[in-house]
Amino acid sequence: MANWTEIDRHAKLWIADAGESIRRSFKHSLSIQTKSNPNDLVTNMDKETEKYFISNIRDTYPDHSILGEEGNGDQLNSLDGTVWIIDPIDGTTNFIHQQRNFVISIGIYENGVGRLGYIYDVTHDELYFAEKGKGAYMNEVKLPPLEKVPVHQSLIAVNATWLVKNTYFDQHKLVSLATAVRGTRSYGSAALELAYVASGRIDSYLTMRLSPWDFAAGKIIVEEVGGVVTTLLGEELDMLSVNSVFAGEVNLHSEILDQFLLPTK
Amino acid sequence: MANWTEIDRHAKLWIADAGESIRRSFKHSLSIQTKSNPNDLVTNMDKETEKYFISNIRDTYPDHSILGEEGNGDQLNSLDGTVWIIDPIDGTTNFIHQQRNFVISIGIYENGVGRLGYIYDVTHDELYFAEKGKGAYMNEVKLPPLEKVPVHQSLIAVNATWLVKNTYFDQHKLVSLATAVRGTRSYGSAALELAYVASGRIDSYLTMRLSPWDFAAGKIIVEEVGGVVTTLLGEELDMLSVNSVFAGEVNLHSEILDQFLLPTK
Repeated sequence: MANWTEIDRHAKLWIADAGESIRRSFKHSLSIQTKSNPNDLVTNMDKETEKYFISNIRDTYPDHSILGEEGNGDQLNSLDGTVWIIDPIDGTTNFIHQQRNFVISIGIYENGVGRLGYIYDVTHDELYFAEKGKGAYMNEVKLPPLEKVPVHQSLIAVNATWLVKNTYFDQHKLVSLATAVRGTRSYGSAALELAYVASGRIDSYLTMRLSPWDFAAGKIIVEEVGGVVTTLLGEELDMLSVNSVFAGEVNLHSEILDQFLLPTK
Repeated sequence: MANWTEIDRHAKLWIADAGESIRRSFKHSLSIQTKSNPNDLVTNMDKETEKYFISNIRDTYPDHSILGEEGNGDQLNSLDGTVWIIDPIDGTTNFIHQQRNFVISIGIYENGVGRLGYIYDVTHDELYFAEKGKGAYMNEVKLPPLEKVPVHQSLIAVNATWLVKNTYFDQHKLVSLATAVRGTRSYGSAALELAYVASGRIDSYLTMRLSPWDFAAGKIIVEEVGGVVTTLLGEELDMLSVNSVFAGEVNLHSEILDQFLLPTK
């Protein structure tokens, strides 16, 4: 029987510790600097952070499995048991260019069901987290249920490149949607964008190709505030492969799905 | 003879003061809250902040003119003399939804020439500023000259809605550009996006319809780090009317202009 309170305590401790290391790696937090090898910095930091999590999880929970972006986790064919799904740095381009708008993302699943989700905005020291059935938080503030908002008043996150002809989805559908909403944004970190949906900073997020570590945590957090996270066709996400992702408050999600995304009958 | 050192000292003092008032208006800075009347809050704050600047400028510099978004400034037909061009809150949708990603923007022009520029990211307490010929800063850090970056490695800010058929610019050109670059972002505040160009957080910014108060400060700051700010066709900006705006490091600006924006010969 998993002790979720203890697992939660460990996860938060390790995330805070990893975040502190990342912030220390910036000479001046939030300041401007010219780096000789920004790509090396992010590669090293990505790998080191993942190793730090893996080593702690293996030591503390030897029977848990790990799915991670940097490839040092397990090769999994199922989500049986307890699985940590980890992206040590989501938004690496932002990490290099901006030293902001990147996050640590960790989702913990039990037999395929999301139990604990964490998205840590390192630069802003903002931890979005949720435990299934117990609500979602941003640091110590409980996140209120998402408010219903009509499409034409909604602020959505969608990258401009998905409004261009691509092999994944009919761009005309997203063009119609982008024209109908109040405004569009794009931040370049899927996990951060899911955290923004959960906290009402944006109303919906749509994208094409995400891996499980990009959305594992966000799905749990968004669902705890009355949001829905599916593929662009409203299907359940496959936690072991690449998916399109579409998140939003349940009514808005359904309205966008019916009016813009699903094939017309 | 204008005393620019003294004007600069006053501008910074007033901006810091206005920023502090805005932050106080958030119950918890950077925290999540449900507001009963978010639109009223931003309207009041916008007007109050503009009034604060106008009253200070009129008292201290009675011979200066003021061009402001909220309509309490002067009706100007020319930029003769010293003109303060003010946007008290640029990014009002973000102000409401996010309590971040909005700025105070002030450009001070002398006979049409930009002398002092200020963009204050209120939530992050980051002041981007420049004095013509004396370099640009983010808080106490001097901003380095922009680095040359090829189009395919560049990160550009362009809103998804400009890749959709619109009456201002041939969207196919921006579609081609968005497909060619490393990535696109969109933050929903023109002045902030110009500050991000100046600080290298993004390499270029393109948009359709901006008023002088949206770009007056950003133009001065971007130019001080080796950037260029023009219309989408490379023309000089008209400081008394609505313009399209295209900012970037000088080489990247020229490359994008020639390869993507100008009519093919």
